[in-house]
Amino acid sequence: MRAVFLNGPSLQDLQKVELADPAPPGRGQVLVRMRAASLNFIDLAVAYGQYPGVGYPLIPIADGAGEIVAVGDDVTGLKIGDRVAVHPKALWTAGRGTMENTSAMRGATLPGALREFAVLDAASIVCLAGHLSFEQGAALPIAATTAWNALTCAAAGPGSTVVLLGTGGVSIFALQLAKARGARVIITSSSDAKLEQARALGADETINYATSPDWDEKVIQLTGGRGADLVLETVGSATFPRSIAATRHGGVVFTIGFITGTSTQIDLMPIIVNMLHLQGNNTGSVEDLAKTMAAIDAAHIEPVLADIFPLDELAAAFGKLSSGPVGKIAINIDW
Amino acid sequence: MRAVFLNGPSLQDLQKVELADPAPPGRGQVLVRMRAASLNFIDLAVAYGQYPGVGYPLIPIADGAGEIVAVGDDVTGLKIGDRVAVHPKALWTAGRGTMENTSAMRGATLPGALREFAVLDAASIVCLAGHLSFEQGAALPIAATTAWNALTCAAAGPGSTVVLLGTGGVSIFALQLAKARGARVIITSSSDAKLEQARALGADETINYATSPDWDEKVIQLTGGRGADLVLETVGSATFPRSIAATRHGGVVFTIGFITGTSTQIDLMPIIVNMLHLQGNNTGSVEDLAKTMAAIDAAHIEPVLADIFPLDELAAAFGKLSSGPVGKIAINIDW
Amino acid sequence: MRAVFLNGPSLQDLQKVELADPAPPGRGQVLVRMRAASLNFIDLAVAYGQYPGVGYPLIPIADGAGEIVAVGDDVTGLKIGDRVAVHPKALWTAGRGTMENTSAMRGATLPGALREFAVLDAASIVCLAGHLSFEQGAALPIAATTAWNALTCAAAGPGSTVVLLGTGGVSIFALQLAKARGARVIITSSSDAKLEQARALGADETINYATSPDWDEKVIQLTGGRGADLVLETVGSATFPRSIAATRHGGVVFTIGFITGTSTQIDLMPIIVNMLHLQGNNTGSVEDLAKTMAAIDAAHIEPVLADIFPLDELAAAFGKLSSGPVGKIAINIDW
Amino acid sequence: MRAVFLNGPSLQDLQKVELADPAPPGRGQVLVRMRAASLNFIDLAVAYGQYPGVGYPLIPIADGAGEIVAVGDDVTGLKIGDRVAVHPKALWTAGRGTMENTSAMRGATLPGALREFAVLDAASIVCLAGHLSFEQGAALPIAATTAWNALTCAAAGPGSTVVLLGTGGVSIFALQLAKARGARVIITSSSDAKLEQARALGADETINYATSPDWDEKVIQLTGGRGADLVLETVGSATFPRSIAATRHGGVVFTIGFITGTSTQIDLMPIIVNMLHLQGNNTGSVEDLAKTMAAIDAAHIEPVLADIFPLDELAAAFGKLSSGPVGKIAINIDW
Repeated sequence: MRAVFLNGPSLQDLQKVELADPAPPGRGQVLVRMRAASLNFIDLAVAYGQYPGVGYPLIPIADGAGEIVAVGDDVTGLKIGDRVAVHPKALWTAGRGTMENTSAMRGATLPGALREFAVLDAASIVCLAGHLSFEQGAALPIAATTAWNALTCAAAGPGSTVVLLGTGGVSIFALQLAKARGARVIITSSSDAKLEQARALGADETINYATSPDWDEKVIQLTGGRGADLVLETVGSATFPRSIAATRHGGVVFTIGFITGTSTQIDLMPIIVNMLHLQGNNTGSVEDLAKTMAAIDAAHIEPVLADIFPLDELAAAFGKLSSGPVGKIAINIDW
Repeated sequence: MRAVFLNGPSLQDLQKVELADPAPPGRGQVLVRMRAASLNFIDLAVAYGQYPGVGYPLIPIADGAGEIVAVGDDVTGLKIGDRVAVHPKALWTAGRGTMENTSAMRGATLPGALREFAVLDAASIVCLAGHLSFEQGAALPIAATTAWNALTCAAAGPGSTVVLLGTGGVSIFALQLAKARGARVIITSSSDAKLEQARALGADETINYATSPDWDEKVIQLTGGRGADLVLETVGSATFPRSIAATRHGGVVFTIGFITGTSTQIDLMPIIVNMLHLQGNNTGSVEDLAKTMAAIDAAHIEPVLADIFPLDELAAAFGKLSSGPVGKIAINIDW
Repeated sequence: MRAVFLNGPSLQDLQKVELADPAPPGRGQVLVRMRAASLNFIDLAVAYGQYPGVGYPLIPIADGAGEIVAVGDDVTGLKIGDRVAVHPKALWTAGRGTMENTSAMRGATLPGALREFAVLDAASIVCLAGHLSFEQGAALPIAATTAWNALTCAAAGPGSTVVLLGTGGVSIFALQLAKARGARVIITSSSDAKLEQARALGADETINYATSPDWDEKVIQLTGGRGADLVLETVGSATFPRSIAATRHGGVVFTIGFITGTSTQIDLMPIIVNMLHLQGNNTGSVEDLAKTMAAIDAAHIEPVLADIFPLDELAAAFGKLSSGPVGKIAINIDW
Repeated sequence: MRAVFLNGPSLQDLQKVELADPAPPGRGQVLVRMRAASLNFIDLAVAYGQYPGVGYPLIPIADGAGEIVAVGDDVTGLKIGDRVAVHPKALWTAGRGTMENTSAMRGATLPGALREFAVLDAASIVCLAGHLSFEQGAALPIAATTAWNALTCAAAGPGSTVVLLGTGGVSIFALQLAKARGARVIITSSSDAKLEQARALGADETINYATSPDWDEKVIQLTGGRGADLVLETVGSATFPRSIAATRHGGVVFTIGFITGTSTQIDLMPIIVNMLHLQGNNTGSVEDLAKTMAAIDAAHIEPVLADIFPLDELAAAFGKLSSGPVGKIAINIDW
């Protein structure tokens, strides 16, 4: 079967290879023909050698989707032909995350999506909502699950205000899911064109942080002086102090981002006085993905794909991810 | 000032009276000119002498709304002219309910809404959303708060299915709030006309329980064999066993109803095997009403009033309540 | 290898048999030499043909413990020689229970504990705390996990009062775990001798329901008129109405019992007025067992075994279970 | 009546004064003869002019206790002679904290404990457990409530490990309450003598951070490589990064301290990867104090008073607070 190898810490080290055909699925496993993948910042970290504990060569890309072509013993609820999303946290099936069940990661410590076939634990995949393409389905595992978990952590709904930083994959899923839950959305970007796209997707308020660098004060104004119920912190050190300042008494700063750096100077006083809840997050369980899929199905949400690249244009796909797209970058897996 | 007295356990015992003018509001209090009320089954129970611990004469009706005409010392966040809903659980301001803070009830153990003026604790009232009339605002305290608490208890949202029994005040608020939260709604009635109204308000599925008395099995079918995430049990013994049968593994039966009787034969086995959560509820706190108001404000929900009666037609208003209206019965307080 | 078969719905149908030796453990599996089992009411239901969906012959008994003698591929955190408890809910590893993951049950729909060797999913077993014998460890999966989940559901701790009905396996674990959490324990029995044993184990108050059949009123008295924070309903229809009456405003009735029948007449009014939380429960996940084991380890709890029977005296063991022992009945698996 | 004034931002500005006798208690109020107070760091901040929004002269000290000498109208559950703790967050009676209900603070924006009599809202006081002296009772409102809320936030109990930084008032209450809940306690200090005192109070493990500045690594070792379930962050910038490092995957860093500074450099990566919950806290509600009191009552906890000072030695009392005592500093209010 065919696959893509990352032979070392560089996009130049990507290479199509021919591997032995997969063994039949074992007990509790299914064989999946991979059809699509989507890019996340973790894939960039792996491609540049910044992800710990990775050995080369590896099959890259954490998120994927495909269709079941064989089913092993003792698998219930799945059958040949089912279209599925593959969760990268292969061992974190349900319940709380632990050191053990969160460290295994497809596309990093385990083989990723860019292969013709994959033998996978049935407990690590989720059937796609019927209206999703493979590319849209591949966009979900990391980004949509993270967005859903953030909204659930803050119990976002009618009467809540959610602040989203930028228009990347997590923010756009959070925008769509927040609107499906009835929450109000304030979104930031440095581009008025992207803000316009966000507004078309349902954003209630937009802030251009290039022209309004004090976006936290804008949030305070837009919330009648109270602050947001939830800030989804997808950015890191460049925004963290303002994210704290933009959050209401008792609100949630859901922390997943580090693209602008991981070291940040914070003032503990507003955290203490306003009794903020800072919640670090690292994706979620397969059960969380299943709940997210059910929400996307029920709300008929169309995942936003900024672009779909063929396998031969992986470097271009990574470049697009780095350029700050609106929504997700997908890969069509076609050999 | 003028008021209505209930002189004994009968609708015949309703009487307009002249009372002494109210004292100025004390510390922490406001003076409210009452403008509207709404009827709930508790008012029927009081009117027929079935509510324990009540002495006559009393000023009836639990739910009310009005405008502030004077403000006492040490009141913050309220001013003359504010339009407010009056919460009947006068002592349950926030946090968990207790024997002590839930037993005091306006229109029963405390004076109710049908009076020209009321001196009220500032902590027991909530400002109306701007788009609400006094009659709509008066419809909220018991029914909308209960509906919101049920949905919150089950974390209803996109991917959830909520079952509502009948088209009374609580059910219709639950329908509107469930849709605002993104949940799917199945509603029952014995009237196709009422089901049509419910569908116009957003109900996804309707079941006529007169023609389909096995409505619980319909719910199972409509949920792909799983059952509902939440059944809002507004009816009592006539429906309770089927409400249990209609709920999914791990789901919530939110129990508030008793109009068909309070004694019911149940089978513990499905409760145990399906790990159901049966949650009894008795309205909610003032804080809960405030959250509900915020949700109604954010989602621009128009409370559904089946009818508005003048003070001179209270008996007719109670009759309408008993007839099974769609939504709430309001009283315009105009002397 | 040797095993015990239940050939039909009768204790007379128990039979030692010789089976083929087990296959080596597959991927994600371990081979366990079974060393002990413990009895629960579910085993009685299976033995008398009252458990649905069971086919004969079957290897009986849900709860077991043993030691690992071989480890399959891709198993982490377990090694040969580890002493383990085997969870009967083989598929419910973590997170919320569902129709799918709670229906599979060792000793009923899956082979049970009474066999020389068992090939088991590594995800379905938990290492024993060091101070436990195999018989004590086998006592934990159903009874201790259930007791822990009840206490956790009610957040029992210092300032809480927990009511336990009788001195069976779940009640005695709940007694020990409640004391370890700092809660106050009231326990009932019809035997003063058993109540004395319970008091020796830490019970704060005892009620003989034979001489005080109005034990719910005693609970109200013992809690200053408020009622208990948690009633662990292990009995069923004979006690259910009094369990509701004994629970405080906002308290929890944790419902797991049916030995006196599953049909019960209840009054909805106290459930509604007192906003009770009735929680049905069906054991718990492997993760729940692991947390329970950690608590038993930390608190150095010695599981109470009323008796240990050899394999040749299974009928006597079941008889002892039916006689109302204090604590658990264990089986020593020695061929 | 007599009182103490703080006339300006200095301990030199403390002065005994004679004030008008208090008015009788109004509706919902009680008159309390103040008998004791206890010191917290907030009192130091007020005394040195570092607390925002304070005007001089003021009656200092947030925490107090006394006995009821008169009861106003509409007060239930309290009577003359009751011994009570006075909660400094006078407006935060129950439910979630808000900007509005958490900003009013006795001893800062409202009159504090150092006066002969105080007219107080009945909703802002809690009856003392019977075994407590006035000085012990005065020690509870800020410190014990904070400690209880931290333990509750992390659901600390048997199987949990709690890390406490230093032996101040909050840490020592947390030690006693954690042991009452069955949790394991690791405590740090720079003094072996204080660690010995902590061990006598029940601490399971002690770390001298003067000789072991890498106390976070010690915590990791003492928890089998996992980290603590809860770190109660009472210190601020000097310890914050190590507190994060000492917390297990999914654990809680409960943040209340700032005595070593409020600005701290943090690395977001362990927060994200380990999905930490950082919870800022600012005391708690009167309902939280009531729950804490119930726990202290049930567990017969003796609050630890490092010293009790008379009113004439307030400066010495503050000095003792700054010196790092084990437990609380109390003031006996006797004129």
